[in-house]
Amino acid sequence: MQLKFLTTLVAVVAIGINLTGCKPKDAGSAVSGDAAEKVYVAPGKHDEFYNFLSGGFNGQMSVYGIPSGRMLKIIPVFSVFPENGWGYSEETKPMLNTSHGFIPWDDLHHISLSQTKGEHDGRWAFGNANNTPRVARISLSTFRTEEIIELPNSGGNHSSPFITENTEYVVASTRFSVPVDNQGDVPISSFKKNFKGYISFISVEPKTGRLGIKFQLKMPGISFDLARAGKGKSHGWFFFSCYNTEQANTLLEVNASQKDKDFILAVNWKKAEEYLKQGKGKKVPAQYAHNVYDESTHSASSTIINEVMTLDPKECPDLVYFMPCPKSPHGCDVDPTGEFIVGSGKLAAVIPVFSFDKIQKAIANKSYDGSFDRIPVLKYESVLYGEVQKPGLGPLHTEFDGRGNAITSFFVSSELVKWNIKDLKVLDRVPTYYSPGHLSIPGGPTSKPHGKYVIAYNKITKDRYLPTGPELAQSAQLYDISGEKMKLLLDFPTVGEPHYAEALPAALIEKNSKKIFKIEDNHHQYVAKGEKEAKVIREGNKVHVYMTAIRSHFMPDNIEGIRMGDEVYFHLTNLEQDWDVPHGFAVKGSSNAEILIMPGETQTLKWVPDRVGVIPIYCTDFCSALHQEMQGYVRVSSAGSTVPLTFSTGKVNAPEVGEKVVKK
Amino acid sequence: MQLKFLTTLVAVVAIGINLTGCKPKDAGSAVSGDAAEKVYVAPGKHDEFYNFLSGGFNGQMSVYGIPSGRMLKIIPVFSVFPENGWGYSEETKPMLNTSHGFIPWDDLHHISLSQTKGEHDGRWAFGNANNTPRVARISLSTFRTEEIIELPNSGGNHSSPFITENTEYVVASTRFSVPVDNQGDVPISSFKKNFKGYISFISVEPKTGRLGIKFQLKMPGISFDLARAGKGKSHGWFFFSCYNTEQANTLLEVNASQKDKDFILAVNWKKAEEYLKQGKGKKVPAQYAHNVYDESTHSASSTIINEVMTLDPKECPDLVYFMPCPKSPHGCDVDPTGEFIVGSGKLAAVIPVFSFDKIQKAIANKSYDGSFDRIPVLKYESVLYGEVQKPGLGPLHTEFDGRGNAITSFFVSSELVKWNIKDLKVLDRVPTYYSPGHLSIPGGPTSKPHGKYVIAYNKITKDRYLPTGPELAQSAQLYDISGEKMKLLLDFPTVGEPHYAEALPAALIEKNSKKIFKIEDNHHQYVAKGEKEAKVIREGNKVHVYMTAIRSHFMPDNIEGIRMGDEVYFHLTNLEQDWDVPHGFAVKGSSNAEILIMPGETQTLKWVPDRVGVIPIYCTDFCSALHQEMQGYVRVSSAGSTVPLTFSTGKVNAPEVGEKVVKK
Repeated sequence: MQLKFLTTLVAVVAIGINLTGCKPKDAGSAVSGDAAEKVYVAPGKHDEFYNFLSGGFNGQMSVYGIPSGRMLKIIPVFSVFPENGWGYSEETKPMLNTSHGFIPWDDLHHISLSQTKGEHDGRWAFGNANNTPRVARISLSTFRTEEIIELPNSGGNHSSPFITENTEYVVASTRFSVPVDNQGDVPISSFKKNFKGYISFISVEPKTGRLGIKFQLKMPGISFDLARAGKGKSHGWFFFSCYNTEQANTLLEVNASQKDKDFILAVNWKKAEEYLKQGKGKKVPAQYAHNVYDESTHSASSTIINEVMTLDPKECPDLVYFMPCPKSPHGCDVDPTGEFIVGSGKLAAVIPVFSFDKIQKAIANKSYDGSFDRIPVLKYESVLYGEVQKPGLGPLHTEFDGRGNAITSFFVSSELVKWNIKDLKVLDRVPTYYSPGHLSIPGGPTSKPHGKYVIAYNKITKDRYLPTGPELAQSAQLYDISGEKMKLLLDFPTVGEPHYAEALPAALIEKNSKKIFKIEDNHHQYVAKGEKEAKVIREGNKVHVYMTAIRSHFMPDNIEGIRMGDEVYFHLTNLEQDWDVPHGFAVKGSSNAEILIMPGETQTLKWVPDRVGVIPIYCTDFCSALHQEMQGYVRVSSAGSTVPLTFSTGKVNAPEVGEKVVKK
Repeated sequence: MQLKFLTTLVAVVAIGINLTGCKPKDAGSAVSGDAAEKVYVAPGKHDEFYNFLSGGFNGQMSVYGIPSGRMLKIIPVFSVFPENGWGYSEETKPMLNTSHGFIPWDDLHHISLSQTKGEHDGRWAFGNANNTPRVARISLSTFRTEEIIELPNSGGNHSSPFITENTEYVVASTRFSVPVDNQGDVPISSFKKNFKGYISFISVEPKTGRLGIKFQLKMPGISFDLARAGKGKSHGWFFFSCYNTEQANTLLEVNASQKDKDFILAVNWKKAEEYLKQGKGKKVPAQYAHNVYDESTHSASSTIINEVMTLDPKECPDLVYFMPCPKSPHGCDVDPTGEFIVGSGKLAAVIPVFSFDKIQKAIANKSYDGSFDRIPVLKYESVLYGEVQKPGLGPLHTEFDGRGNAITSFFVSSELVKWNIKDLKVLDRVPTYYSPGHLSIPGGPTSKPHGKYVIAYNKITKDRYLPTGPELAQSAQLYDISGEKMKLLLDFPTVGEPHYAEALPAALIEKNSKKIFKIEDNHHQYVAKGEKEAKVIREGNKVHVYMTAIRSHFMPDNIEGIRMGDEVYFHLTNLEQDWDVPHGFAVKGSSNAEILIMPGETQTLKWVPDRVGVIPIYCTDFCSALHQEMQGYVRVSSAGSTVPLTFSTGKVNAPEVGEKVVKK
């Protein structure tokens, strides 16, 4: 009975207001007369901004053009992607390795784009794996995932991958506190005693982007949510929202909603670096995977690392401080100057704005309101710049327009609210359809926002588009914020469930976008750099096919002498050197996906024949007028067969050129 | 050397003309002034047409709104979809079973939408698996794949799933001829002797849509390409384009391009039904999977079938005829009246239009031009209505506007060409960017086209959008065809590689779209229809968790007593009964994906713990203001542990309610 009541209550609070009670009659289609022209990007013209969206439960990152709302690409990150062989080719399988083994899925919640001097530099995107804690780095030259690092001592990596203003670090803190790795078999009810919450500082090598866990902070067992690095004057600090400071382990909707204030955690990471130099860090056993894709070998490797550096704030004074923040905070955002830190409590009636200057003074004056697990709690009043009064219901996230204003999303009251950072006055509010989570202004989290648009990523879609059964796309909305009032321009559906997203000017990426891989730079172990290098090699029961693809044939396209019990590795090299001429490859009845091979690249499909026969192979990407003819056959004989290993292309009656190169 | 020359030649022919030599200077952005308004669908307003696109190498079907070009949904069909657990949940795994075992991917080339009396009826979509031959049926009420049937004796199911005017059949013919199943270990060079090409007629049960292979036609070893059923006067017939009538087995770009004419095959399927009734069919051993998803149990089953009915045209006179068709035909389309059959030869200089009346006369008069593998070849002149002269280079597909005109796509000359069906005069041509494959007019393949738009699905994207590295989205283009001249309106990128697509008026689907599954109709074996039915049952090393989800908690959310070596089955029932309130479920470190559970549905995630510890679980779909609090813990102890099996939600200190319901 108690549960039923709570459920009803929360349901009403959460979505009842806008969805059932007072849905506007125009269903949010009131737009200004020039909206169509403003979002129309004529055929052949390019969008003004790239918008990188986290895919949420699809484990991918998606890329949209703004203002058109057109989806330009899905980048597979943590989830297998049969479409192009990500996680199926031999080269990419290691990217999804973890300490738990191969994992085909994750929940990518947040994006961060690399910065230099507080501005987007267009080099990399980072994404977090929420479920099996990891952070990924994606190249914005190739739009491919280049690196994934797992996080030990984390129970769920929601609070990640937030970035410092020169990409010194991306951070990753735990959502679910857990018993520290390898000390796990304790009662769940011993939460307060045994469960801990770790924060990882992942360093980013400036030239290559290479990731490494520099250190982990051992924190009490609470839940960390969104975070932002300081910038400008507050560079060197990091701010994290914290909830479940009640340390509940069950029915959190009730038990973690007890206190009027939870915390924002302030971390002085420059100080942490000093402590590390002083040898205050402690290496502890751990087990986590570090996976790197090498563009020159077109192959990934996975390494398991066995220890991690930790810092215990209890042994490192002046490293971390809690600041009280009403109530169950989710968002934590820092304005372009670095002076103001905005907390957004899901159940709060106000938006608190903290002052970096006041935080520094409060620390200097030891203006404490006691401590939490021996970490000082700064007095709310001593760090507070002020509160935005009556902003809306259920504030979640705030971005900045670069003209002194903030825009905050409100889940419960389904709106975006614009307010002035200095005087904390509400300036404008527009409805959203329905229940926005995050929002994004191009450059919004940097020192130099481009305040032309804001995009709301809504959590509920319902009737916004033609229906598609019970399962609907997610929905985003684009607003013009160049004037005093925000103006709705466009609804556009999105894949997965976008949580955070970032947008940046197209020029930062467009100029460096890679079109092909140069064949002469291909150092894959099994590359065939021309048709003359095509061959088939047997090594015991492993058969390596060095195969080439070029419009419109494979070399070889007839192979005989494969036997049941063999493992066949098709190493496909795409010999093309023109943009947008991929070739694909598939084998009939294979329990693998296809592979899609970009110009100049080599990728490998493993195939274990399951029956005797002549098996078709073909190009899966429509590459040319005679693509349909780009096919071949592989003959599979029984295990004891004496059919010789032969291969050819174009020898109509006798596939026999292979015999001379077969290793015995 | 020979190969290099050919490669260069084909490359030049295929894409050189438009891409390098004479790319228009305006890059195709010349549109009329009202284009923006014509494609703009204001926020909250709905598109006029659904457009169902085959996903090609992504193995999915995608759904777009027209005229906005917005993607409304991706429907997983033949490929696993970590985003919603398709292929990962216990309930959906059987859908991807085949005679080769579980297959995670395929290449979905063509769509067909169900018809009644020659018009779209909005009930089902069908899609083909090109690689491991299968046909799928998708419900347009739930937008889910409900059925998949495998095709024996097929080497590649490209020519599929074309449909008759009352959805009596969808057909599926082989692209790659192969030795008949189980007679496979023969030299590839024995193609002409041993390889056969089968055509499957799959019956569709009128009320349920249930599929079955009614019969297969045993045809000579050639390649079948696109096909269309007769309609109106030609109802009862089916027309298939055929290539590689040279019966080459290697370097087909050369060896299958030798003859000036290949064939269109005409099949009298009403006659086939008569032969079956007369007992002329022959059941032969086969092995193929038939997978069905049951909406009442929310579960799929897979059955292996062991024989298939075949008809041999050599033993069944007047069943099939070949018609000569220039050169390497790809498309084969029938006009709304059923009188005209249009062939599109990839290497042909004309478009031949055949007359159904003349075909009937030629058959009656035995106007033969010899035979091919003992099948009569009708004289070209005796079946030809006429040829469209100088239409363009590389014709692929033709659709109809319902006003007496045809529009044909041209891959090599990158254009759409409109011509009059009666006088065969070219009326208009517009460039496409670049190299269209298929094209789609809403209702275009039916008896009643809605000739307002045509959409071109282009094979080459290059510079049409902001660049995204070497791998680019596919690109579609929307044209207004309501006037005399075709007018370009919009470029929109698409996922996968769309080959064929169909569009139909929104009203046909919108009214029947399902919003939730009723909890009282849920007959899943492990459903929990309320929180009181939640429980955890151990059966040996299998642990069944009957779990419920409702905003914003799971019941139970604390589970202890799981041991290493257990297989844990989380059977999640979503108790919500509102539209667009899915819950998701994931387990940290699981080597499985998430599951996404629609309101009223039960889905099961299997988890095999890999370590001792307290493992977080959580809801992966942002469901409510307190979604972030929708989490729990599972305690895993060592194999020999005596920690009792307990479960609870909301009991802070003692999860013990489970003990009384545990089966010993």
